[in-house]
Parts: sequence; C-alpha cells; structure tokens
Amino acid sequence: MQDGTFSPPGHLEETDVAAISTRGDVFAADCPTRRLLDRIGDKWSVLILLLLGGGDLRFSELKRRIRGVSQKMLSQTLRALERDGLVHRRVEPTVPVTVIYSVTPLGGELLGALRLMIDWAETRMPEVAAAQGRYDQRINLSHSAPHAPN
Amino acid sequence: MQDGTFSPPGHLEETDVAAISTRGDVFAADCPTRRLLDRIGDKWSVLILLLLGGGDLRFSELKRRIRGVSQKMLSQTLRALERDGLVHRRVEPTVPVTVIYSVTPLGGELLGALRLMIDWAETRMPEVAAAQGRYDQRINLSHSAPHAPN
Repeated sequence: MQDGTFSPPGHLEETDVAAISTRGDVFAADCPTRRLLDRIGDKWSVLILLLLGGGDLRFSELKRRIRGVSQKMLSQTLRALERDGLVHRRVEPTVPVTVIYSVTPLGGELLGALRLMIDWAETRMPEVAAAQGRYDQRINLSHSAPHAPN
Repeated sequence: MQDGTFSPPGHLEETDVAAISTRGDVFAADCPTRRLLDRIGDKWSVLILLLLGGGDLRFSELKRRIRGVSQKMLSQTLRALERDGLVHRRVEPTVPVTVIYSVTPLGGELLGALRLMIDWAETRMPEVAAAQGRYDQRINLSHSAPHAPN
C-alpha cells in the first residue's frame, strides 16, 4: 500500500457480521469495542501514534511536531493511549526528569491499519475536495431555485 | 488480515515525513487533510461505511443496524459522507419515496483501511482491557499511598 493504491472494497457478508459478533461487535451500542474505536479514530491519537512509530519522543517534541495541539489535549490523549496499552511512558532520572514516549507492540499493530487510513486521506484529498465542491453547488442550486427573482 | 494477525509496525522515517509533506500533511494545523481525518475517524462514519460495504441500505435499515445512533446524528453523518464523495444517496420514485445509500468507489478505497482498524479493535479488545486494568491499579496505588492511614 506504499504506492498509494488501494484494494477494492469487498463486501461485508452476513456471515462476516455473525463472525464479528462472536468477538467484539462495533455495531452494538454497549460494546466496549465501540468506545475503543472512538478513541483510536481520534485525530490526536492517530497523529501521536504515527509520530511515535518513527521513534521514541519526548513530550515537548510531540507538542512541537503536531502543530496546533494544546498542552492539555496532548497530555489527555497520551494518558488515554497509555491506559489502553498503546503507548509506553518512561521517566528517565535526569534533572529535571525526562519523560519519553514510545509505541508498544500492541500500538504498533494498530499503527499498520492507521497508516493506510492516513495514506488514503493524504493522497485522495483532491477527489474529496472536488466532491465537496459538486455537493455544495448542488445544494446552493436547489436552495436558490425557489427564491429566484421572477 | 482476515485471520486477526497484523504486520509489524515499521517506522515512519524522516524521508517518509518529507514525502508526506509534498502531498497532504496531517501534522500541519491548517491542512484540510487533518479535518478529513477527523471526519473519517468518526465512529459513526466508520460504522456506516462498513455496513454499506456489505450492500446498499435504506436510512431506516442503517438506523436499525447501528444500535444507539440517533436519527439526527445519522442524518448529519450521512450528509457529511455524501459531501465528501464517500457515500452516494439515491432517491427512488416510490410512494413514499425510498432513499437508498451506497458506498462510492472512493469510499470503497477508504473502507479497506478502516476494516483493518475495526479488525484490530474487535480482536485486541481483551489486551486493551487488561492494559486499562493495570493502568488503573497503578494510578490507584500511587494516589492512595500518601493518604494511607499510618
């Protein structure tokens, strides 16, 4: 998937849906998998995991490289990722202490899937922007028609 | 990836980061790719795309199968997906009209990447839950220590 191509969608058959419900089931309102999905789909989580996939980083380095993230949001997201076992936090006994974050093997697995999503978003943005333009034009036309003078 | 195994994380090299910034750049605060990432990582978007990957569905069917989603949230998310060119909305001239949703080829590409993420979440939930348990225990211990009687 490094060349920016993607496999065709395939289909989620009823048998797949049945198979899914014997493990986690993201379609169930009360399944913890759905809450997990919410966290791992979070923009900041994705960006943090991607950066840590390139090597361990200090808090300040993460803050500098993820442009626009607040200190509070970065702390919260790192705590959630650490709690989920996706990121490891290591304190080095320097003066002052150095806090270093790394991705765990479990987080590394997730990263593989996230990379495809990022890759898609970064290469397909022109198509998405074109679709948005067409949609907005259609909406404007259908809204302006009844109010047209004459 | 149907067997629940995942490839090792790999690394985001500096050269990859440079390559990324010549197309979209999710690390830039003002890049539209980041806003797109926010929408496609949204829990409801993911669930809708997954279901439509199995075949076209009416609004009411989507509502029934994604347990816990409100009518308003489903409408909003479908509109956003349609605007991004990921979902197609077709109105059939029945009485009353039937509105049918399907995934577009662009949405189908994204679906491939999302499936890996879902697959990871549904199979790795026990490991995540175990990590959460360890984290909470550690936090409780460190919080209760200073307040321990004697």
